[in-house]
Amino acid sequence: MLSKNQIKLITNLQKKKFRYKNQLFVAEGVKVIKEFLKSKFELYALYSTTDIFIQQTSNCSFITEEELKKISNLTTPQVALAVFKIPQAFTLNSSGISLVLDGIRDPGNLGTIIRQCDWFGIKQLVCSLDTVDAFNPKVVQASMGSLTRVEVIYTQLEEFLCEEKRLKLGAFMDGCSIYNTDYNAKDVVLVLGNEANGIRPSVESLIDLKVSIPQYGKIQDTESLNVAMAGAILTSEIKRKSFL
Amino acid sequence: MLSKNQIKLITNLQKKKFRYKNQLFVAEGVKVIKEFLKSKFELYALYSTTDIFIQQTSNCSFITEEELKKISNLTTPQVALAVFKIPQAFTLNSSGISLVLDGIRDPGNLGTIIRQCDWFGIKQLVCSLDTVDAFNPKVVQASMGSLTRVEVIYTQLEEFLCEEKRLKLGAFMDGCSIYNTDYNAKDVVLVLGNEANGIRPSVESLIDLKVSIPQYGKIQDTESLNVAMAGAILTSEIKRKSFL
Repeated sequence: MLSKNQIKLITNLQKKKFRYKNQLFVAEGVKVIKEFLKSKFELYALYSTTDIFIQQTSNCSFITEEELKKISNLTTPQVALAVFKIPQAFTLNSSGISLVLDGIRDPGNLGTIIRQCDWFGIKQLVCSLDTVDAFNPKVVQASMGSLTRVEVIYTQLEEFLCEEKRLKLGAFMDGCSIYNTDYNAKDVVLVLGNEANGIRPSVESLIDLKVSIPQYGKIQDTESLNVAMAGAILTSEIKRKSFL
Repeated sequence: MLSKNQIKLITNLQKKKFRYKNQLFVAEGVKVIKEFLKSKFELYALYSTTDIFIQQTSNCSFITEEELKKISNLTTPQVALAVFKIPQAFTLNSSGISLVLDGIRDPGNLGTIIRQCDWFGIKQLVCSLDTVDAFNPKVVQASMGSLTRVEVIYTQLEEFLCEEKRLKLGAFMDGCSIYNTDYNAKDVVLVLGNEANGIRPSVESLIDLKVSIPQYGKIQDTESLNVAMAGAILTSEIKRKSFL
């Protein structure tokens, strides 16, 4: 049975302010929750309509489907909802490949980019302070457990890039072709910009090399590939080059 | 002023059966409609709440926002709705790069893949008969005008692949690395499978070469990249190789 206070706490975690005040976030669905349970993330509370987590944890409260509906962020609630603690701040890497996001606003895009990082073994994703929060329920859902393996760090981007020693690539419409550009792909940061406005000028001025995905078709020049799609292609190409 | 019959016709076009019976489909939003007006697609009817199309066509009926709401497929209707004629069947290409979809169900995925084809200058997209319809309103919206430049052909895939002379690549979880595989990338077809089940066995048996995107991270093996994402990366790599 869920108390009024529990319901209030969980539904409040939809808001960023409350997530950081309480240092807690919500994950939903059996598959995603199982990945978090297997990871370093610390469980705060787990609510399920079935005994599916019986082998993973003794710390599970049974609730009814009615109760799950009250606390779920999903239109179709999926068996279980868990509350985990937000991890402590990570230390910035100084080598390898990192992705950097300048003002990504769409939770689905951030979730997809976190999944890509996971796929390509990119350990850190550095985000501007105005990028959507990685513990937003929609991001947690879209990243499908990849948040357990990718460290997302929010920081003042201009400061970060000023101190960054690795080669700084930035995705631009008018950059040089990512396929033909020569650089050491083993140690780079790749900056992707906001969905509508791209990389902001104060960040652009700190980029070493502007790169693009050549546009072979006759697509209108105002149209660009979706940022998650462009990120996937650029990351794939950097990763490929890093093994040459 | 919209008649009851007009409203009925337009809302019926949400259903595939009615689209093909009437050989008509709906496009919404100023930007998308302008792209269709500039293309070879034939306009059947255009409804707008403003005079924004005055320079493109004289064939525009003014309607109220209330009326637009009645015929729109969008939660937030966008100024205008147009009805275009479904183009006549295209002739299959026999050279260059083509994409082939085996049972893609999600309209957003198909729309995104059509946009990618456009970006990479891939002229034809061959789809199995159970792939979601390219003139589904959600696909038209997600492809953002790219449908005016990419020919989408629905056909019996096994027959198509049997007769196809180009090298047939297929995206599989256990294929060889797309980066290290040697083939003539100038003339290939790339087959992408259904979101949940991949490429079906009857299609798999007609594939010449299974390819994969190497997975560098420790992502769960049951998880794969979203099909649109995988398509973007594979297409980018084939395109890159085709210029070597």
